[in-house]
Amino acid sequence: MRLHIVNPNTTAAMTAKIAAAARAVALPDTSIDARQPTMGPVSIEGFYDEAFAVPGLLGCIRDADRDGADAHIIACFDDTGLDAARAIAKAPVIGIGEAAFHVASLIATRFSVVTTLGVSIVPLEHNLRKYGLAERCARVRAAEVPVLALEERNADALGKISSEITAAIREDRTEAIVLGCAGMADFAGELASKHGLPVVDGVAAAVPLAEALVRLGLRTSRLGPYAAPRAKTYSGPMGGFQP
Amino acid sequence: MRLHIVNPNTTAAMTAKIAAAARAVALPDTSIDARQPTMGPVSIEGFYDEAFAVPGLLGCIRDADRDGADAHIIACFDDTGLDAARAIAKAPVIGIGEAAFHVASLIATRFSVVTTLGVSIVPLEHNLRKYGLAERCARVRAAEVPVLALEERNADALGKISSEITAAIREDRTEAIVLGCAGMADFAGELASKHGLPVVDGVAAAVPLAEALVRLGLRTSRLGPYAAPRAKTYSGPMGGFQP
Amino acid sequence: MRLHIVNPNTTAAMTAKIAAAARAVALPDTSIDARQPTMGPVSIEGFYDEAFAVPGLLGCIRDADRDGADAHIIACFDDTGLDAARAIAKAPVIGIGEAAFHVASLIATRFSVVTTLGVSIVPLEHNLRKYGLAERCARVRAAEVPVLALEERNADALGKISSEITAAIREDRTEAIVLGCAGMADFAGELASKHGLPVVDGVAAAVPLAEALVRLGLRTSRLGPYAAPRAKTYSGPMGGFQP
Amino acid sequence: MRLHIVNPNTTAAMTAKIAAAARAVALPDTSIDARQPTMGPVSIEGFYDEAFAVPGLLGCIRDADRDGADAHIIACFDDTGLDAARAIAKAPVIGIGEAAFHVASLIATRFSVVTTLGVSIVPLEHNLRKYGLAERCARVRAAEVPVLALEERNADALGKISSEITAAIREDRTEAIVLGCAGMADFAGELASKHGLPVVDGVAAAVPLAEALVRLGLRTSRLGPYAAPRAKTYSGPMGGFQP
Amino acid sequence: MRLHIVNPNTTAAMTAKIAAAARAVALPDTSIDARQPTMGPVSIEGFYDEAFAVPGLLGCIRDADRDGADAHIIACFDDTGLDAARAIAKAPVIGIGEAAFHVASLIATRFSVVTTLGVSIVPLEHNLRKYGLAERCARVRAAEVPVLALEERNADALGKISSEITAAIREDRTEAIVLGCAGMADFAGELASKHGLPVVDGVAAAVPLAEALVRLGLRTSRLGPYAAPRAKTYSGPMGGFQP
Amino acid sequence: MRLHIVNPNTTAAMTAKIAAAARAVALPDTSIDARQPTMGPVSIEGFYDEAFAVPGLLGCIRDADRDGADAHIIACFDDTGLDAARAIAKAPVIGIGEAAFHVASLIATRFSVVTTLGVSIVPLEHNLRKYGLAERCARVRAAEVPVLALEERNADALGKISSEITAAIREDRTEAIVLGCAGMADFAGELASKHGLPVVDGVAAAVPLAEALVRLGLRTSRLGPYAAPRAKTYSGPMGGFQP
Repeated sequence: MRLHIVNPNTTAAMTAKIAAAARAVALPDTSIDARQPTMGPVSIEGFYDEAFAVPGLLGCIRDADRDGADAHIIACFDDTGLDAARAIAKAPVIGIGEAAFHVASLIATRFSVVTTLGVSIVPLEHNLRKYGLAERCARVRAAEVPVLALEERNADALGKISSEITAAIREDRTEAIVLGCAGMADFAGELASKHGLPVVDGVAAAVPLAEALVRLGLRTSRLGPYAAPRAKTYSGPMGGFQP
Repeated sequence: MRLHIVNPNTTAAMTAKIAAAARAVALPDTSIDARQPTMGPVSIEGFYDEAFAVPGLLGCIRDADRDGADAHIIACFDDTGLDAARAIAKAPVIGIGEAAFHVASLIATRFSVVTTLGVSIVPLEHNLRKYGLAERCARVRAAEVPVLALEERNADALGKISSEITAAIREDRTEAIVLGCAGMADFAGELASKHGLPVVDGVAAAVPLAEALVRLGLRTSRLGPYAAPRAKTYSGPMGGFQP
Repeated sequence: MRLHIVNPNTTAAMTAKIAAAARAVALPDTSIDARQPTMGPVSIEGFYDEAFAVPGLLGCIRDADRDGADAHIIACFDDTGLDAARAIAKAPVIGIGEAAFHVASLIATRFSVVTTLGVSIVPLEHNLRKYGLAERCARVRAAEVPVLALEERNADALGKISSEITAAIREDRTEAIVLGCAGMADFAGELASKHGLPVVDGVAAAVPLAEALVRLGLRTSRLGPYAAPRAKTYSGPMGGFQP
Repeated sequence: MRLHIVNPNTTAAMTAKIAAAARAVALPDTSIDARQPTMGPVSIEGFYDEAFAVPGLLGCIRDADRDGADAHIIACFDDTGLDAARAIAKAPVIGIGEAAFHVASLIATRFSVVTTLGVSIVPLEHNLRKYGLAERCARVRAAEVPVLALEERNADALGKISSEITAAIREDRTEAIVLGCAGMADFAGELASKHGLPVVDGVAAAVPLAEALVRLGLRTSRLGPYAAPRAKTYSGPMGGFQP
Repeated sequence: MRLHIVNPNTTAAMTAKIAAAARAVALPDTSIDARQPTMGPVSIEGFYDEAFAVPGLLGCIRDADRDGADAHIIACFDDTGLDAARAIAKAPVIGIGEAAFHVASLIATRFSVVTTLGVSIVPLEHNLRKYGLAERCARVRAAEVPVLALEERNADALGKISSEITAAIREDRTEAIVLGCAGMADFAGELASKHGLPVVDGVAAAVPLAEALVRLGLRTSRLGPYAAPRAKTYSGPMGGFQP
Repeated sequence: MRLHIVNPNTTAAMTAKIAAAARAVALPDTSIDARQPTMGPVSIEGFYDEAFAVPGLLGCIRDADRDGADAHIIACFDDTGLDAARAIAKAPVIGIGEAAFHVASLIATRFSVVTTLGVSIVPLEHNLRKYGLAERCARVRAAEVPVLALEERNADALGKISSEITAAIREDRTEAIVLGCAGMADFAGELASKHGLPVVDGVAAAVPLAEALVRLGLRTSRLGPYAAPRAKTYSGPMGGFQP
């Protein structure tokens, strides 16, 4: 099957890392088509960056959908543009944030999230409440590591994340950790070993969930908010993406 | 004071109607600066339209903020781009949806919302939950009237909305009605008289709330998710709006 | 317009301070009619004091309503008697507690309340839950300063409140502070400057909200629990206030 | 043991009926001391009547507490003045509303309430939310029978209540009925037989719960909101009840 | 009346202690019939032990019901098998956990639970949410004392529980303590005296509640999930308990 | 990989159908090991049947775990014994109810459940609340078809389920249907085609989720309630399953 995974920021190194993380867990006959928009911010940290990432992201979704993708994964932990993407894609769409929350719920009654910056805590809490899984989340923590600092994979970034996990175990009565950024994909194994509890990475979690929807023949419902948008005029540079 | 009100769609007639509704309730010394983006959809109906309206909307917020606006009002009932706008504007920002929900909460223990299309029900429910006011809302109803059909102010649109109010009184144990679209601004008085209960229009509600924040000297908190976005590179046609 | 603001306790100095705080933010053409009951406690701290303040308070509401008040404000932070007042007043009624919660919700996703005594924490939590805004409140804190100690505006009272704000910023992930007593009205500016976050005073918040309802022509709904009370016999010294 | 049960309205016939209902279920060695205030409304229907009933009610609580009552029951289904009463009484205090909700929770996963007038629905919903039992309640229904009409025990009142029970079984997926007024105390048996489900009367439910607290030696906690009120000056005709 | 109290584990000393605690508060004419299953674990600590205790427990319920019990009490704090027991018993059934939560709710707005091991915290939280009383519970704490260690009533066990109560008062804003294990029944008085707040033991709380249901003639509703199980074949050693 | 799927009732035909449904969606290199207990009820309908199915079910889990299962699926829609199974299995465990709820949440904002008998509605609602997904579920409906009637796959059973789906679309604002019984596994395709919305079967949903956990190397957390049970004596016929 053809799985489209879109990194909604414009940093190519991060797209490559995400693609590698996806390929590492994908089924043998799954091809990973990793894309990134040509417009938008180099990283997504908070509400403002999200807003500017969405049009480019939706362009990628639209293009990949036309190219025959069987499913789409949005590889930003705040599930940027997920609802809009579902409305236009024929194939099902999964966000790595929701994927991680659902998977963590299958192996623990409570989990803590460790994300990058404090500015992302509330957006993630909003998502958890929207998904219904807020009660399963003990706490959303920020390691105060900018997204692009993760690209360097320096000991400092890893150390700060590890410290938050230590705090989560001590203070949150947490049973599992969810890594709150696509850029942390390659830390999961090391952190799980070190701390002795399950550590869930959203990119890895999203791949088998997306494959599952394809294998089950399930697509986004067209009843309700994901009905195809009504035809209308869209002005400006993003006009080409109109439905 | 200078109040900026932005209609996030590109329909000029609607901007004019919104400006008139705002001026009708504004204080004598309040100037209403009504804007609309040059890019984006002609109307906002559901998640997809929202996504494409936001960059243009944020451009208007940014420009008006630089021009010295004392407060901003986003005149789309689903409060499109509200969180992102708060992160970049020096002046406080209010959405007409949240304004209507808060005002209705001051005159009734329960209210029903009557919006345009069914596709908007879930986005509004998400907002109500995010604001904490979901318990105050008896039900979000759709009159199945497209946004632009409201511009014609034909009896049919008004009739469908009125029918939903009748149903809300009979079925929802509702005490007040919130009109769920900026384009319904001029229906409130007529419907309140006809049905004998308070009818709240978001545009009208937002104006004195925005004036209140200015008079009280209150601005959006910079602690938490509305901290100023970090400086970073934004590519593409929307690059000019970067913080 | 004529705005009636009632201090539900019998301390005249506090009524004067409340009136001054209200006048400081009122519109030029708004006259502030500040009243206090002749019976009841000198301050309201907890459920018991509330109970005895209500009949006198309702007398003030009834009288001011007959005298042509355009709106009423109940200037006790636990919104004493608010529901009963709404049932009998022709004009709309706002409590300073609810006013502060709604206004704080427009500039922050989370706020902490700093009130006087610990005995008031649960009553305020009950109100927050009733209004639907409990999720917006990070924590209700008590400075352990009795209401009347605030009248002296000594450094000690201010210091204790300031200490709680420091703790709220450090521990609650708070974005804004709501001052939980009408007697703190004159501290807001100083505390906001000192701590660098928005500080909301209920008296100041309630005035433009009350003016907003009048300007919008909105009155309390008569459907539901605020229907006019049925005529019946009331015995005893409070008999004169019967509807 | 000495059980004080106070009817917070001034209708002597209702006090007698309540006393009889209490005696019918009390333990052999429990004496029922039924009181009613000399001031306040003849019946309590909604927020306004509640407000005026409380001072007289608290006087009864204070007097009976001094006379050695082992526990107090407030025999109005909206649990009028319950929080204030707890703050001043040495003996524990139970409201018949909360008693009925707790007892119904022991025999059913969901119950519906049938109360007198629609104006009482929201006050009861507020209580259910405050107690935490809102999720256990399928729906609060009003038979639209005024409280004093129950005194005549005519077929019409009983018929209207019975009709609501029929509707609750058909529409609410209810498993048990809670009668929402002290004046319905003598209907429970007949309605249970007729409809084939448990019917809980609050007066009957409160008596063994109050006896239970006495037998267990449990009193209202003085930590938190039920701490004894601070000594202060109370003016006016209710001054004698100050703590 | 005949009250059946079942200790769902197989430790006879604990059954004896439970019976004594029940008799200490039972009415003079109540006979306490204490039973324990012949199969299952020696103590119940967490989900797994619960699962194996239930068939034996249900056998006791079935037998005692046939022997004419007027009510049943399940004397394990996690209310093991309560829902299944209600489905088969003619007489009403109460769990000591739910009994303690309901009783604590009558004397405090918030309580903390102190249970045995950390493994039981989540099961108790699930129950609190199911009952609707989760909001009333400030926190479930574990003293890390195994159930059977309580049988020795050594100072160490009591000391650990006492330490948790100290912590609950300091950290949880708690107003009352609920002891989270049937084996703590004889600690309540001592701990209440020492810490100066109400301490609720579930065994003691359940007895008057069970007596209350009998005195009120209330039985488990047969509408909904407690309808009598449909006749069907049950294989294996537990077959004798089939309905 | 080796996937163990246990039908917790004793009906072999149903086990065969479940195994076939699992094999139909399993990966090529996944072997399905379908088991059923030798003791317990022939079908599980409500709390009582659940209780008796659990010990046999846990025996199957224990045995398959020792035989090297990589993951376990509990193929009863009320997720019978799921928590206990997680505590003893080395491999991860998934219930088909939770699997269906999580999968439906990826393709719809709201779903309705259609289960067999009304007696199962509350148990499923309890699960939804425990999982956090209650808000995602519009309504749990019962087709009033006994579990074993599904084995005959007669038009009547299918017709009743189909009628409930029709009602769900009309009344619940539902976007997707979850089939609430393992015995409905072979109806999903037909019903999805007929009603034009996604229909999720729990058996099919659980297989790729279980495979996902194995592929991701995720196991049940041992922190919290799923810690391995402490060694202790278990008496009676189920003694062999002790940990």
